[in-house]
Amino acid sequence: MRLATVTTPGGTTAALLGEHGWRALPAPDLSALLAAAEADGGWDPARVAAQADELDRDLPGAVPVLALPRPGKVICCGLNYGEHIQETGRDLPTHPTLFAKFADTLTGPDDDLALADGVQWDWEAELAVVVGRTLRRAGRDEARAAIAGYTVANDLSARDWQYRTLQWLQGKAWDATTPVGPVVVTPDEVDPFAGVDVVCRVNGEEVQRDSTRTLVFDCADLLAYVSTFATLRPGDLVLTGTPGGVGVARDPKRFLADGDVLETEVAGIGTLRNTVRLTPLTTLSQEHPHGA
Amino acid sequence: MRLATVTTPGGTTAALLGEHGWRALPAPDLSALLAAAEADGGWDPARVAAQADELDRDLPGAVPVLALPRPGKVICCGLNYGEHIQETGRDLPTHPTLFAKFADTLTGPDDDLALADGVQWDWEAELAVVVGRTLRRAGRDEARAAIAGYTVANDLSARDWQYRTLQWLQGKAWDATTPVGPVVVTPDEVDPFAGVDVVCRVNGEEVQRDSTRTLVFDCADLLAYVSTFATLRPGDLVLTGTPGGVGVARDPKRFLADGDVLETEVAGIGTLRNTVRLTPLTTLSQEHPHGA
Repeated sequence: MRLATVTTPGGTTAALLGEHGWRALPAPDLSALLAAAEADGGWDPARVAAQADELDRDLPGAVPVLALPRPGKVICCGLNYGEHIQETGRDLPTHPTLFAKFADTLTGPDDDLALADGVQWDWEAELAVVVGRTLRRAGRDEARAAIAGYTVANDLSARDWQYRTLQWLQGKAWDATTPVGPVVVTPDEVDPFAGVDVVCRVNGEEVQRDSTRTLVFDCADLLAYVSTFATLRPGDLVLTGTPGGVGVARDPKRFLADGDVLETEVAGIGTLRNTVRLTPLTTLSQEHPHGA
Repeated sequence: MRLATVTTPGGTTAALLGEHGWRALPAPDLSALLAAAEADGGWDPARVAAQADELDRDLPGAVPVLALPRPGKVICCGLNYGEHIQETGRDLPTHPTLFAKFADTLTGPDDDLALADGVQWDWEAELAVVVGRTLRRAGRDEARAAIAGYTVANDLSARDWQYRTLQWLQGKAWDATTPVGPVVVTPDEVDPFAGVDVVCRVNGEEVQRDSTRTLVFDCADLLAYVSTFATLRPGDLVLTGTPGGVGVARDPKRFLADGDVLETEVAGIGTLRNTVRLTPLTTLSQEHPHGA
C-alpha cells in the first residue's frame, strides 16, 4: 500500500494509491490519519483500504506534498552504516547516536530548498520509518509490528554549523531543509530488514549508495531503543542514518551549489527531487552575538 | 504579571494571578493562549489583563500544572555559565551549544519524577524563556521584544545515557523528566538581563546557585541565534543553561536517589518541588539491541 498527503483543489488530503491513481482517505493529511487511527483502536492497514473504498473519491491530478506535516518527534540516527562510520574515522558504535529535528525542519518531496548562502550544505540520503502505534519501552518485535511504513528523507546538513559546537542540532534543524516523501509504503511492500538500496544523486551523479542490510541498528532496534526513554507516537518519524559518500568526507570536500538538483531515492519507495536555491543569510547572529 | 496553566474542576485553564488569587483566561492552557494571541494580532500583555477582566472568573483552589503543554520546540543551551563550563574542563564558547527536548519531556511544577532505576540522574536548574511572537532571523532587539515571559525548569539529565554517544539527546529527552513552572512571569516583573539567581536544592541542601548576569549567551542572544536557523513560535521554550554544581562534576560524583526532593528556584519567579521516585527500567533495550 502506498500512502501520501496530496494536493487537491480544496487543500490537502490523505490518500491511497489505487490502480488508477490517488484515492481520498478521510483525513487532511497522513499525520491526522495516523492520529485518528490511534484514537480508533490502533493503526490497521486493512481498515485504510476499506476507508478509501467507502469514500470512493478519485483524485485526478493530485500531487504528493509533505506526507507527515506534524510529527511530534523527528528523531535521527547518525553513524549507522559501516562505510559512513569509517569515512568519519570512528569505530562501530555500541549505542545509536541520536539527535532531533523539528516538524518545521521538514519539506515536501519536490520542494525547492532555500538554503542560506555561505553555509556548507551537504547531503545525507536516508530511509525513514513512520511510527504507526504508540511505543513505550518496547522490545524489537513490538517495535517492528508498530511500523506503519517507510519513506525517503534527506537529512541535509549545514556542516560548518553542525561542527561549531559539540551538539549537531544547529546544523541539522534549519527550517524546511529535510525533504520527506514522496510516499509512505507499508511493510508488506518494502522490506528494509532484507535490504533496500538508499541512493543520493547530485545533478544526476550518484554520490551515495548502500543497502539498509548493512545498518548497524536496524529499524526495529532504533524504535525499541528510542522507546526506552521517549514514547513514540503515530506519525513520528525516525531517520535511520546515511551511507558513505557525503560531501564533507570527500577530498576535496564538496558542498551543494545554487541550482544543484538533489535526488534522494530508496528502492521500492520513490525519489525526492529538490533543487537548491541559495538565498542570502540576512541575520545578525552568525558571529558570537555579544560581538554584534 | 504572573501567568499559569491551572487545574479547575472542569479541566485546565490559562490563568492570571490577581490580588485575590488565580483568574481565568480564555484558553485551556498557556500554549493555546499564546497561539490564539499570535493569530489575533500578536502577543500583548495588556490585552491579557483585559481578557481576565472581561471573563471575570475567579478560580478558588486552582493549582498550577505544566504551564506550556504543547511547545513545538524546546531548545536547550548547554555550557552557558562560566563556572559550569570550567567544571566540565572546557573553554568559553564562541557559539551556543544547542540541543532539543520534546513536549513529552516536560512535566508539572509539583509532579513526582518517575526516574528509571540504575540510571545516573543529575540536576540542572535553569531559567527558561517563553517565546511570545514568531521569530525568524531576528536580531537581539527583536528577539528581546518577543519574550512573553520567564519560567523555571530543571534539565534533569541521565548522565550515563547522555555520554553513551557524541549526541546528548538520549540523556536529555526521557519522558516527563523536565519540570517546568510554576508560573510564567512577564519581563516587566523579572529581569534576567540585570541578573536573577538560579538555585537548585536537593533535600534542602543548596547544590547550585548563580546569577543569570553571568550567562555567556543571554536570553536575547539565544533567541536571535536560534531564529537564524529555526523559526521560533509562540509557546516555544528556550532553556538557558545551568550553573556550576551538577552532581556528575562532583568528587565523588553524586546522583539523585529514591525519595530525594529536588527544588529548583529562580528568584522572582518561583520554585519547582519534585520528588524522585525510582522505577524499574523494564526494557530490552539497555544494551546494544543486536545483542538482545
